[in-house]
Amino acid sequence: MNVNGRHYRTIWIKEDDESVIRIIDQRRLPHEFTIEDLVTVDDMATAIKDMHVRGAGLIGAAAGYGMYLAALEAAGKSSFDDHLYAAAEKLMSTRPTAVNLSWAVKRQLEAVTKGDSPADKVAIAMRTANEIADEDADFCRRIGEHGVRLIEEIAAGKNGRPVNILTHCNAGWLAFVDYGSATSPIYAAFDRGIDVHVWVDETRPRNQGASLTAWELGQHGVPHTVIPDNAGGHLMQHGLVDIVIVGTDRTTYTGDVANKTGTYLKALAAKDNNVPFYVALPSSTFDWEIRDGVREIPIEERGPDEVVYIEGLCDGEIKRVLLTPAGSRAANYAFDVTPARLVTGLITERGICAANEEAILGLYPEHRG
Amino acid sequence: MNVNGRHYRTIWIKEDDESVIRIIDQRRLPHEFTIEDLVTVDDMATAIKDMHVRGAGLIGAAAGYGMYLAALEAAGKSSFDDHLYAAAEKLMSTRPTAVNLSWAVKRQLEAVTKGDSPADKVAIAMRTANEIADEDADFCRRIGEHGVRLIEEIAAGKNGRPVNILTHCNAGWLAFVDYGSATSPIYAAFDRGIDVHVWVDETRPRNQGASLTAWELGQHGVPHTVIPDNAGGHLMQHGLVDIVIVGTDRTTYTGDVANKTGTYLKALAAKDNNVPFYVALPSSTFDWEIRDGVREIPIEERGPDEVVYIEGLCDGEIKRVLLTPAGSRAANYAFDVTPARLVTGLITERGICAANEEAILGLYPEHRG
Repeated sequence: MNVNGRHYRTIWIKEDDESVIRIIDQRRLPHEFTIEDLVTVDDMATAIKDMHVRGAGLIGAAAGYGMYLAALEAAGKSSFDDHLYAAAEKLMSTRPTAVNLSWAVKRQLEAVTKGDSPADKVAIAMRTANEIADEDADFCRRIGEHGVRLIEEIAAGKNGRPVNILTHCNAGWLAFVDYGSATSPIYAAFDRGIDVHVWVDETRPRNQGASLTAWELGQHGVPHTVIPDNAGGHLMQHGLVDIVIVGTDRTTYTGDVANKTGTYLKALAAKDNNVPFYVALPSSTFDWEIRDGVREIPIEERGPDEVVYIEGLCDGEIKRVLLTPAGSRAANYAFDVTPARLVTGLITERGICAANEEAILGLYPEHRG
Repeated sequence: MNVNGRHYRTIWIKEDDESVIRIIDQRRLPHEFTIEDLVTVDDMATAIKDMHVRGAGLIGAAAGYGMYLAALEAAGKSSFDDHLYAAAEKLMSTRPTAVNLSWAVKRQLEAVTKGDSPADKVAIAMRTANEIADEDADFCRRIGEHGVRLIEEIAAGKNGRPVNILTHCNAGWLAFVDYGSATSPIYAAFDRGIDVHVWVDETRPRNQGASLTAWELGQHGVPHTVIPDNAGGHLMQHGLVDIVIVGTDRTTYTGDVANKTGTYLKALAAKDNNVPFYVALPSSTFDWEIRDGVREIPIEERGPDEVVYIEGLCDGEIKRVLLTPAGSRAANYAFDVTPARLVTGLITERGICAANEEAILGLYPEHRG
């Protein structure tokens, strides 16, 4: 999507130097837009581990390009494949729970080791990395094409007034290679000239809404308003939300949706006020094993410092301030699970379906028992 | 309640100098505990206006003591009553929507102007100010005596495991003269030796939970954990909340509850998980006129800076940091309304009742049509 009027992806091969990968360093957003050059597989491992890049789709693409950097390095070594396997280990250990990461690394290993020569292997690694990134962008683009129909239908009934969309956390293009999941229908609607306005939940404790979603919507020109996570219920009670669209970190084949903490509260409010509640996801986010999301999806408990402190801009510098009394404990459950009964539908790259086993397997028959 | 092991109220006449009113300056909490001396009615007006003191009950008491300071000043003037009326105007203009403020000022005017001499009038003003503060503390204490029974009942079924109570915002003793409303049953339970643990919603945007509720619970020794406002639903889904107790800024005689933004979302989650949801209030908080709280209670929209910036401690100083992108708008609806159907019961100074017209008027028959 656009930054300062120019089109960007979150990760790409440098225009005039194929040995360099460029990323947007997301740690400085929304206060600074920084492009970082990565030249070694160690650079990429650090970028993933320290969250210069984050988000399921983008982590997969970063791992793919990391393996390409590893192939470039391996071309100068006596044993190409040994170096490649060591790099694979290194990349996979950066964020062990990210499914897309190991999937991308394995795809690269399988493709590259079939090459005839070091030069051939490097070419395969570059092609595969680009394929992984292109597929991610293409899936997200298609989510937008399906999801935009929901927004068009609402717009048709609003007599020119803007369609108000509420979203939580960042399921935007910054979490993928381009377009995003939850944001893709919004960008598609905006680009077609539909009058949209987005309520952006700030999404404590890490504030990905206030810092990332608000920034990317603003850069693309989409009208939006940042709100505390507490506000959505009031807005829905008063007819100020037409549709909720969120992303997901894992969705069961029965339609239960794990997403950033607080999503469940918004789904409850949507149900109580007859506001449609949609979840946008590429098929890679489905869990084809788990039946009961609330009981079975493990919820990561992160360190309390994300609750106790917050970062922001102060006198031109990014500073961390303490929010709580010295002796108080804090807890930080990163996700929650929204039961399928509260979800109006799922927006996937293959189309929109209801959040139940029959409808999901109808779109993905290859996963039938 | 206790601070550093000593009992305090939020406002009192200085022990060795009856011409001075002391308050806890709440602007520096939770990072600094500061007692401020107020000697003129202008001092008190500033303290109310700039929120050194806040909370319905405490604002009423502050206005009462402000009128006592006005009487002390008036005793040296040619026209006692003229000065008193001017002071009343000044105090009432500090926070025009606070009902307790004008109620306390009017009570003082009515009492004091009946005095025979300046000395008599000053004595009446002091007595009335103390009465207002004592009544506030007494109502809150009685809320605790009624509400503690709910906690005792839960404790009886927990085999020695702690009773987990979730609260939102600050309906603590810092918002009243002592005890608080929502916190009063919690302090009563703790003081009786019941094992309680409180989940404290941080309560963005002004973070009264993280800064005030967590501080006062900690000072009194009550075990507690600060959580993002997004976490309560997950906790309730997993059996980690036994009861929710919140305060209210205005409750209709039909049981609709206006309280700090986000309360409605917690009430929805409580209902969805069969967690009892109680609202604690002194009778002065009932609105005997409004029937439909969601449609009729006006919701204050405050400035966006409370969302865009946050204050915290950094390098020993309280600093304000920017959270959002430069061009992003923010909205700040301060309250929301929880419909009576989501409220298990109301805890008042006269006892506990269901959140409906019949039950409320049963406790307060003097307000029957």
